Amino acid sequence: MSDQDDDELRYADMTVLELLTEMKDTSETIVDLAYASLRFNSSSIAEEVRKLEKDMDDLKYAMRYRVMLSARSRDDAKQMSGILEVGLAADRISDAASSITSLLRFPQEKRPYINNILNESDEKYRMVRISDVSDMKGRTIGPDLAVEAQTACRIIAVKNRHGWTFDPEGFFKLRAGDEVFARGSAESLDQLSAYASGREPYEFPEAVPDDKAEEDAADDAEVEEALTEELRGEDSE
Amino acid sequence: MSDQDDDELRYADMTVLELLTEMKDTSETIVDLAYASLRFNSSSIAEEVRKLEKDMDDLKYAMRYRVMLSARSRDDAKQMSGILEVGLAADRISDAASSITSLLRFPQEKRPYINNILNESDEKYRMVRISDVSDMKGRTIGPDLAVEAQTACRIIAVKNRHGWTFDPEGFFKLRAGDEVFARGSAESLDQLSAYASGREPYEFPEAVPDDKAEEDAADDAEVEEALTEELRGEDSE
Repeated sequence: MSDQDDDELRYADMTVLELLTEMKDTSETIVDLAYASLRFNSSSIAEEVRKLEKDMDDLKYAMRYRVMLSARSRDDAKQMSGILEVGLAADRISDAASSITSLLRFPQEKRPYINNILNESDEKYRMVRISDVSDMKGRTIGPDLAVEAQTACRIIAVKNRHGWTFDPEGFFKLRAGDEVFARGSAESLDQLSAYASGREPYEFPEAVPDDKAEEDAADDAEVEEALTEELRGEDSE
Repeated sequence: MSDQDDDELRYADMTVLELLTEMKDTSETIVDLAYASLRFNSSSIAEEVRKLEKDMDDLKYAMRYRVMLSARSRDDAKQMSGILEVGLAADRISDAASSITSLLRFPQEKRPYINNILNESDEKYRMVRISDVSDMKGRTIGPDLAVEAQTACRIIAVKNRHGWTFDPEGFFKLRAGDEVFARGSAESLDQLSAYASGREPYEFPEAVPDDKAEEDAADDAEVEEALTEELRGEDSE
């Protein structure tokens, strides 16, 4: 069975909502990886961008097909075309971002500005290596470390002797020697770096009792509902 | 003096590097605000997206002008066209994102999927109100609270009785009653919510002695340089 068939099967089980959510998330990964390919002068990262672009195309066709099947009336069709817009915007964002990787054809010394731009902008990219004495060693990115919540950095890729893992899942376990590519503010990346090198002990997430978490979420939902109502009022004035 | 003249003066003092950095940062703000306009059904946020789109156009023209003036030879011109590519990609990303706001023309009940997509995706948007008993009250987003590092949420806008502040600077001081629009993972937004409501005491950033911070940064730079060298080796094989 070819990859193409695999993809068609993979997307066949997804709802329109799942397809669109996947498109939005993929477009964000593509933007990150496109900038990262320049930052680290890496054609392997650029190659992954091309693969994800292909995934986006498959998702787009799957979404169009599903939407066409669902529209039963003129009103339906109008509403559906609106839904398509989010997916198409995500696809255009990906196209624009992936064009950035074409800059790799310039030798690095011929594009001195690029690293400056990436170092000056709010969101920066950095790679850190997990040291043998780091608390991060042997722990999962999500359940054990909650890297994003604890460091405010997003791990966009990990490289080790098995190769690259792009946009790793929460259960991905970090090992000594792993090279972690992350995005964040300068301060957040400094913090991640201190944890990865073992210079500082990792600050592990606190376990929240389930009922407390649910209660908080209910409170939040209530406040937010009220605020949304208010805002809607303001806008329709 | 018209706004147009103001903008031209503002951008006239900026270097190509500064212009491009501003374009990259603005494109990221536009993507956030475009999704947020749908999430909160807000035509004021959509209006800000249109203003930022206009800024992007001005930045693009300023960048092109500056680049044309700088190119003195064929080699120069080739290199410069590469530099333009990052700015143009940022501009295309912004165009794609701002097309999302056109969905606001559908009544909210006619686009039930949208909030689901935005709630299911990795990066979520939420608004929280700063309560009178919150530790965040009366403190600056950056120096005092280091919101991004401490909560892993990015504040994309604040609304209070003076109106909206989009992409607020670090010295922006939060007041009781301020409505804060933030982006982050569900867990990070729950944490921000607990701080904003005063349900949990804020965890303030630790002050790092200056010499220690500099030493760490030097260590990091050294490790990263070595990794970049390695990676370059791999790619040119």
